[in-house]
This record gives sequence, structure tokens and C-alpha cells, in this order.
Amino acid sequence: MIFETELRRVAEDGYHDKHPFHVLLNSGALSRTQVQAWALNRYCFQNAAPQKDAILISRSAGRDFRREWTLRLLDHDGFGQDDGGVERWLTLTTALGLDRDYVVSTTGALPKTLQTIDAYLEFVRNAPFVAAVATTLTELFAAKLHRERFSAMLGSYSFIDPEALTYFKKRLTHAPRDASYALEFVISNAKTAALQQACVDAVAYKCRMLWDLLDALNDAYVIGPSPSGVFNPDK
Amino acid sequence: MIFETELRRVAEDGYHDKHPFHVLLNSGALSRTQVQAWALNRYCFQNAAPQKDAILISRSAGRDFRREWTLRLLDHDGFGQDDGGVERWLTLTTALGLDRDYVVSTTGALPKTLQTIDAYLEFVRNAPFVAAVATTLTELFAAKLHRERFSAMLGSYSFIDPEALTYFKKRLTHAPRDASYALEFVISNAKTAALQQACVDAVAYKCRMLWDLLDALNDAYVIGPSPSGVFNPDK
Repeated sequence: MIFETELRRVAEDGYHDKHPFHVLLNSGALSRTQVQAWALNRYCFQNAAPQKDAILISRSAGRDFRREWTLRLLDHDGFGQDDGGVERWLTLTTALGLDRDYVVSTTGALPKTLQTIDAYLEFVRNAPFVAAVATTLTELFAAKLHRERFSAMLGSYSFIDPEALTYFKKRLTHAPRDASYALEFVISNAKTAALQQACVDAVAYKCRMLWDLLDALNDAYVIGPSPSGVFNPDK
Repeated sequence: MIFETELRRVAEDGYHDKHPFHVLLNSGALSRTQVQAWALNRYCFQNAAPQKDAILISRSAGRDFRREWTLRLLDHDGFGQDDGGVERWLTLTTALGLDRDYVVSTTGALPKTLQTIDAYLEFVRNAPFVAAVATTLTELFAAKLHRERFSAMLGSYSFIDPEALTYFKKRLTHAPRDASYALEFVISNAKTAALQQACVDAVAYKCRMLWDLLDALNDAYVIGPSPSGVFNPDK
């Protein structure tokens, strides 16, 4: 299918694993402060994920979609004995030596991180519904890559132990299940050429958005200097 | 507490069990068509409930709130073997002889029903967050009343069997749990006089909104005539 091929091409072309900051992260070339800054800013994105998913649920009059998508909320925020992905991300930030309340407060995050995430939620709120769903497809095409890189990357830092990495282990099972439902939904619901284009554009937008988050980290913590007020123990 | 007393007073004063249509419904005075019209229009409200709850989840950066509120989504849309409240409402409409797809399509619903529900979702999206949460408090103060009335009412119609009423049985356990969490949240988060007033106003708005839904039914199916195109087998 041309539509699916195009979605895949855009997602693969734009995927943020090619970003300079990600390459540094993967290769073990970052300092402890730089990895901390990444984990702290990425927390904001992790914590916005259930908000984004709830927006999608709120936009659907279809029980089947809502019911399926609610599984993502359970993954992010936990259910019963499971603490959920947001909490597992905090295991990582705590293992990196960051204060839990400080991370949750997001006061140390880069303004550009917060702005980019707000704009993303706004996009998901306002785009044609099927295109809003399509923003989640980046996961499908890059999941394998993503997971391999993370294991490699995190293996390169002596200050990270395997305990801290439960987040990534859990994603191995959740991400493929989520992404295949989303792909099927997008393909069967984007029935016009205009909607298909909107979906392709939405995937491109999502890639750029993830890229922008890494730009912000690169600008502040690799090129420097970081804006005043944000996390920076080296200053 | 003055705040809690005021919330309770407004909710009790405005509660829609005093609406003429509700009084007719409770007393067994409605025709089969009128009860069908009520169930069909009320379906739109039931199906909007998970959308409203998802809006609230999407507006919260706090995992604990989201995690607690997600239980409502599971109640509405089901989880695992449980079909959920929306599906149980369809058991009622089916028992009343309405075609399932017709009900789900909402094409037979009153325009005023749909407009009123859209405006409600808009309110929940845009009101101060704690006031948006406060709209759900009607449940707390009126739950007992509500449940007693429904049993009485539904007992008065020979065309409704107990099987059709599972929806109401389930609400007996869910509603009190939900409402006490919401009340605690509102009381501890509405910290200024302005926010407390916004919460009281939100409860009043919600009562009016439920009242408006019954006005629409009364206008179309008791006073008449019903607008063209909507459900009306007697026409």
C-alpha cells in the first residue's frame, strides 16, 4: 500500500535517532550531567504521554477505540500492582541522582521542552482525529531501532544500573501492541487523499517535535550555555 | 464546612429529579415511546461520560489523579470481561425494542440533546480544572435518591424486565466511590474564594445541563410536536 509505505518512509527518514544529541547519548559520549538533563527533560514528555492519550480518548465517540486506547493509560499511569511507565521513568531519574520532587515539578526543565510538548498536545487536540492518532505511529516504525539503541547506550554509562532500566524492558511488549492497533486504525479511517496526507504530515510533525526536544538539549547542554534557572549542576 | 455545604445545597436544589419529565418517568406515567425516547437520548449522555472523563485526565499533570480517574473509563467502556456502562445502557435500549445501531448512530436523538452535551464537554475542557472536576459532584449528593427513583420507576413499566437494568445495579457500587474521591479533590484543591465559587457555579451549571436534557424531552415528547427527523414511531 502506497499510504502505509509513505507513513513508514516519513517516520524512518525523520526519526530522531539520527539527531546529534541522540548519537552522543547512544555512544556513551555524554557526561553524567548531560544524561541527567536528558532524563529530566524526557520526563516531561513521558508524563505528557497519558495526557495525549486521554485527549485521543476524549475525541472518540466509539467505545471500541476508547476501550483499546485506555490500555495505554494503564501502561503509563499503572493499574493495581503495576506502577506504570511514568513511575518507572522516575526510577531512572532517581537512579541518576535526581531528586524525585524536583523532576516531577518540571521546574528544572528547559522552557523549549515544555513549549514543544504543549504544542504537541495542542496538535493532538486540534488535528483531524485520524491524523492525531497518526502522531503515535513513530513508535511502530522505530521501535526495534529505539530499543536496541537504548540498551547499547545505557550499557555505556557506569552510573546507570540495570534496575534503573525497567522502563525500557516494559516497552518491549507494550509498544508493538499499541502501534499495530494504531496503524490499522489509521489505514482504515483515513479514507480520502486529504486525510491520508494529513496523517503523513502528522507523522512528519511528530518526528520534528521529537527532534526539537533533542535540539533543545543539544543547544543547552552540548553547545551551551543553558538558560538561567534550568537544571545545571555544573554551572 | 461552608464550601461543602454550599456545594451540597446547590446540587440538591437543582437536581433534575424534580423535573416534570422525570416525575412522569418515575411515576410510570409515560408511554413506551416516551420511555424509548428518554433511553435513546440518555444514551448520548452515557456515551459522552467517558469522553468527559478523558478530558479531565488529559488536563491533569498529576499521575495520582489520572490513575484514579482512569477507573471511571474502565467503568464506562469496560475492561477485560466487563462490558462497561455504555454497553449496559445499550442492553436497556435493546430491551426497549430499539435497534442498537440506530441508538449508537445518535441520528434519532434530539438536536438539543446533542448541543447540550457538546456544550458540557466544552465546559469541562475550558473551566478552571477544579471546577471542571466539580461538575461531577452531582452524583455524590443525588446518588441515593437517583437509585431509589430508578428502581421505582422501572418497576412501573411492564415492558422493562430486570435483565435490562444491570446498568443501574452496577452504578450502586461505582457512583459512591467516584463521588467521594471527587469531593475530596475539589475541597482540597479549590483554595481561593474565587475557585470555590467557580466550583459551586460548575455544580449549578451541571444541574441546569441535566435539566435542559429533560426540557428537550418534555418539549418534544410530552408537549410536542417532536422536531422532524428525530425518533418518533407514533408520528
